[in-house]
Amino acid sequence: LVNSNTSFALRPIGVVRSPLKSKDQCPSQGREGGAEAVVEIFTDFVRGAEDISSGREIVIITWLDRAGRDALAVHPRGNPANPLTGVFSTRSPNRPNPIGLHRVQVLEITGGNRIRVRPLEALDGTPVVDIKPVLARADDA
Amino acid sequence: LVNSNTSFALRPIGVVRSPLKSKDQCPSQGREGGAEAVVEIFTDFVRGAEDISSGREIVIITWLDRAGRDALAVHPRGNPANPLTGVFSTRSPNRPNPIGLHRVQVLEITGGNRIRVRPLEALDGTPVVDIKPVLARADDA
Repeated sequence: LVNSNTSFALRPIGVVRSPLKSKDQCPSQGREGGAEAVVEIFTDFVRGAEDISSGREIVIITWLDRAGRDALAVHPRGNPANPLTGVFSTRSPNRPNPIGLHRVQVLEITGGNRIRVRPLEALDGTPVVDIKPVLARADDA
Repeated sequence: LVNSNTSFALRPIGVVRSPLKSKDQCPSQGREGGAEAVVEIFTDFVRGAEDISSGREIVIITWLDRAGRDALAVHPRGNPANPLTGVFSTRSPNRPNPIGLHRVQVLEITGGNRIRVRPLEALDGTPVVDIKPVLARADDA
């Protein structure tokens, strides 16, 4: 029986390597910037990433480990002029499970385990927990 | 320092209520069916979901708790005729972290904590770990 006391263990499959070292350098939505980053896949999981190729669009799923987990309502984009809004109607990183979804394009694969992508606005060192292909139909997540 | 021995605790914020009770009833991609389901938000997290309203498109993020976690390569859609493919290039539920992404439309909110949505192909009882709005631009995840 699932309830709010249940917990599941999420294990990183890789990590983001990015020039963004602190929150101050991050725009509040990825689309405002266009930073390139590298997703480095850990050795244990390289087989899972082998069929990812340049030019493809993929969804990188991260664990935003520097976000807070207690907020249930926030001022969107951190602007006090925006009314308090339930976090599940926002993309705030501060939320009960700080999962990040990032739709990116694959620019290059190097060294067999480094996927260069754009745009990915995530802090250097952010854990990556999953990668999915973007499905053919435009309306898929 | 993040590596593949790190782990993060994911806590369900709600649960899927669905007529789909077993894997046999699930198509291999959501878009092939159009099942309605209800996302029931746990009391502790209701404030986070308060601003979700009918007609909106949202991304439901689930933990596919009946999937295996050991597969790194699969035959897409479970068809042996499809060549073995790294899981991160597939939407297989069997993957190191069985996270499900489901883009759905909100049909109705009832009882303050039940969000009726479509299409959501997830087994009854599947934990929900996050909900995000679909951003205005068509290309966002």
